[in-house]
Amino acid sequence: MLVGTGSATEYRGKYGYPAKPDVTAGKVEAGIFDCIVIPGGFAPDFLRRYPEAIGLIREANTAGKVVASICHGAWAAISAGVVRGKRMTCFSAIKDDVVNAGAIYSDAEVVVDGNLVSSRKPDDLPAFALAIISALTR
Amino acid sequence: MLVGTGSATEYRGKYGYPAKPDVTAGKVEAGIFDCIVIPGGFAPDFLRRYPEAIGLIREANTAGKVVASICHGAWAAISAGVVRGKRMTCFSAIKDDVVNAGAIYSDAEVVVDGNLVSSRKPDDLPAFALAIISALTR
Repeated sequence: MLVGTGSATEYRGKYGYPAKPDVTAGKVEAGIFDCIVIPGGFAPDFLRRYPEAIGLIREANTAGKVVASICHGAWAAISAGVVRGKRMTCFSAIKDDVVNAGAIYSDAEVVVDGNLVSSRKPDDLPAFALAIISALTR
Repeated sequence: MLVGTGSATEYRGKYGYPAKPDVTAGKVEAGIFDCIVIPGGFAPDFLRRYPEAIGLIREANTAGKVVASICHGAWAAISAGVVRGKRMTCFSAIKDDVVNAGAIYSDAEVVVDGNLVSSRKPDDLPAFALAIISALTR
């Protein structure tokens, strides 16, 4: 399920692939999800401007749901306040933001710390997806 | 003088205005500048990937030069390690990164703390420019 911010009826990925949001962040409860995946690119810079979207990530984390971020997705996890004291990774450019947010950074294709799953970049997607599935089935 | 990272021979602004770098960050000393202005947009996300560019900002700050950032430019100032304990502002989306970096954030059109001058967004440019001139002439 694609959760939107309410600001657009369609999103386009890096290569133009279109995706329509199924629901708006402010109109859905974290309880219905098993996992929230925060994608990368510059979208997280916009995502973190929406308190409802950031609140959903925070609530999902509080409820022990799997919270996964890749690349710049860590920015939204930072703003949701779910990374402090956690081991994680992110796109190299935002390492300073992750460390300043109190996370313990590793340069690894995927890092799992409890319910938090994180990867660095598109090349890490296979490991990222497997770690999410593993976290959801343990 | 426009300092480039060495990765491009021309940069284009938000509205397509072209600008050619006069010099590359790794080939210039902070001592020749009176002030470094870090522009906004997503460029700072790239800028902070270049140790020479970040090093130049750090050296300019250490030498007491005026360091000015606007919008997302604060990311580069964060990575240069020049914001901790300083009063500053930035584009609202990256407020969390600025606070996590140890700066004291204010929602004001311009904030001056010693040699650090910062603004939030393009609308603040008149106040930003005046504050930079004032810092350079005091």
